Amino acid sequence: METSSEQAKDTQRLEAFSDGVFAIAITLLVLEIRVPHPEEGETLTRALLHEWPSYFGFVLSFVVIGIIWLNHHTMFKDISRSDHSLQILNLLVLLSVSFVPFPTAVLAENLKNDDGRLAATLLYGGTFTVMALIFNAIWLYASVGRRLLHEHVTQVRIQTRTRRSALGPIFYGGSLPLALISPWIAIGIYTVLALLYLIPLNE
Amino acid sequence: METSSEQAKDTQRLEAFSDGVFAIAITLLVLEIRVPHPEEGETLTRALLHEWPSYFGFVLSFVVIGIIWLNHHTMFKDISRSDHSLQILNLLVLLSVSFVPFPTAVLAENLKNDDGRLAATLLYGGTFTVMALIFNAIWLYASVGRRLLHEHVTQVRIQTRTRRSALGPIFYGGSLPLALISPWIAIGIYTVLALLYLIPLNE
Amino acid sequence: METSSEQAKDTQRLEAFSDGVFAIAITLLVLEIRVPHPEEGETLTRALLHEWPSYFGFVLSFVVIGIIWLNHHTMFKDISRSDHSLQILNLLVLLSVSFVPFPTAVLAENLKNDDGRLAATLLYGGTFTVMALIFNAIWLYASVGRRLLHEHVTQVRIQTRTRRSALGPIFYGGSLPLALISPWIAIGIYTVLALLYLIPLNE
Amino acid sequence: METSSEQAKDTQRLEAFSDGVFAIAITLLVLEIRVPHPEEGETLTRALLHEWPSYFGFVLSFVVIGIIWLNHHTMFKDISRSDHSLQILNLLVLLSVSFVPFPTAVLAENLKNDDGRLAATLLYGGTFTVMALIFNAIWLYASVGRRLLHEHVTQVRIQTRTRRSALGPIFYGGSLPLALISPWIAIGIYTVLALLYLIPLNE
Repeated sequence: METSSEQAKDTQRLEAFSDGVFAIAITLLVLEIRVPHPEEGETLTRALLHEWPSYFGFVLSFVVIGIIWLNHHTMFKDISRSDHSLQILNLLVLLSVSFVPFPTAVLAENLKNDDGRLAATLLYGGTFTVMALIFNAIWLYASVGRRLLHEHVTQVRIQTRTRRSALGPIFYGGSLPLALISPWIAIGIYTVLALLYLIPLNE
Repeated sequence: METSSEQAKDTQRLEAFSDGVFAIAITLLVLEIRVPHPEEGETLTRALLHEWPSYFGFVLSFVVIGIIWLNHHTMFKDISRSDHSLQILNLLVLLSVSFVPFPTAVLAENLKNDDGRLAATLLYGGTFTVMALIFNAIWLYASVGRRLLHEHVTQVRIQTRTRRSALGPIFYGGSLPLALISPWIAIGIYTVLALLYLIPLNE
Repeated sequence: METSSEQAKDTQRLEAFSDGVFAIAITLLVLEIRVPHPEEGETLTRALLHEWPSYFGFVLSFVVIGIIWLNHHTMFKDISRSDHSLQILNLLVLLSVSFVPFPTAVLAENLKNDDGRLAATLLYGGTFTVMALIFNAIWLYASVGRRLLHEHVTQVRIQTRTRRSALGPIFYGGSLPLALISPWIAIGIYTVLALLYLIPLNE
Repeated sequence: METSSEQAKDTQRLEAFSDGVFAIAITLLVLEIRVPHPEEGETLTRALLHEWPSYFGFVLSFVVIGIIWLNHHTMFKDISRSDHSLQILNLLVLLSVSFVPFPTAVLAENLKNDDGRLAATLLYGGTFTVMALIFNAIWLYASVGRRLLHEHVTQVRIQTRTRRSALGPIFYGGSLPLALISPWIAIGIYTVLALLYLIPLNE
């Protein structure tokens, strides 16, 4: 009983800390949007509209981090205990999450720029690929041999989650070679993935 | 019993994450206020006073986010469970909340500027209109057919909350056409709404 | 029973939100310290040392916010319930806390500057005076007639807390006219107050 | 019973506040990485690669703060109560944690710069030395005479933690004179320490 309650507290503080990092990273994204200073003869409206890549990047990264948070959230409902390796893997996923404002800012600043668009897209997609890979590593580490799972988690649920988790690296990783054909394909994939998620599905 | 406690935890982590985003967005507002660098012959006092639109924007946005937080807080006392759609709607309201520092900075920088004041006001009021609309969507989604409500929530309380929630879109949305006559009317409405809320009413 | 547990949760979320704002405001202070860019012939060491007012402001504001957080923390141990007025007063104290990074940056930038030092000190001390006044208002509102207090709080404890809370406005408010004689007197008072608090006393 | 539950709540809010500061400090690190603006004839890829010291500093400081958080986390599992001195010591460790983004930015900006590298390394290593010293002070204060420890903490566990805590000041403090020979030695030590920690050990 004592052990079980101590472990519960353990996952709880890890989750609370993770929530903190997710919440901060998602809210810091807004700092990437610069207050526009209209040039001679330009209206503020025009200057604001001119910054559409910043709004796009803000919304896209917000939704992706939000999705990762939700997945993190539901995944940890199935995980009953933590150990050193889980803590480290979780720290690495938080590292990639807290990095997101940087590639977002780079993408926003180079989306309209033919020279930098490809590099910015690869940095952006690459960040999400790494994040998705670490996310998978957490799940595999916790679920293989039911190492850290709650007893009530069914085998079917494990398989479903394993399959769904694999989609992240496949789509984000797969977008990278496609970006070489055209960065817009990759950006289109990220947008569609985010929109798909927003559609309510049966849980 | 198990299901109920699991669901309780569910809303709890959603609320904790939301609190985090609210707390960060409200505290990031201060970054919008620039440290003044007095020009030749100008005193620091004068330079500080010169920045009044930044203080005004800071306080106004702080109070509005604070109000939204309080409403979010009391609304979720009536909501017992969450599902995917509620999570998504909540994510969208957090998206609008975390965006607030940007229109606040734009408004503060253009309040004294005849050319940009209208666009800045529309951006500012528009952000709050969208936020209020999503906020209503959360409540309607949770309350219609008592989908996600606690059993102890009375029908009268549902109706009161539905009516009160509708005031946000009406006032913020209604301010937008009035801003076309003069941005100061809209800004006056936002100020009065914030002040009204600060007055203690019977709960 | 139900009401009591619901109210407990109420204060809990208010405290959690407040903790969030305190934690963010205290951590944002570091953004005020600029990375120095040594001028021609200047070493980085010298450029770093040259920024001492930024370190001083960082540490001083950190300690003051830390103290306010600790006081907030212990005060809310005595408060059992919240109502609209308490929420609003608490929001106002958070408003003043989240504002602190701005006067801190202004003070740091003007501490070595004879022209701006007085105005910067008055802004800094004025912010803490307002914060201390609102803090007192919270306590008086909660404690007069034992409006929102736990039953177990003794009359002696109420009086002690009332007396101790009054020290904030007295010292911070009293520093302001003294700053007119010399800003260094006021800055000395803030420093001594912070140091005094760090000394462990009987609880 | 009442006292015990009150004290539990006490440590809990201290831990929650600390988690907040850790989470924010660790996430603010990303703000140190500047969006590159390629010069004439330079590609974005090259400009991005050119910023490697910023990525290095980001990852290194992220891992170190993450480690400190984990240690803080496990240490407080053994601490059952808090008092004023513990609160103050904890505040001081948070002060050093929240300071980290500054030496990280200074190091990142001077790592490629022969003139500033030593001073930047000393500032960076010095910050971690101070942090490790305060961290030790917390543990010694709590553990000497079992002042604030849970009853279930064994004597062996106390000794293990005391020995392990002492490693921080030894390695970080010891790196400082070595930096005088070459800053790269100190930077190598910080890197190896971070990597060592990431390797899963028996708990």
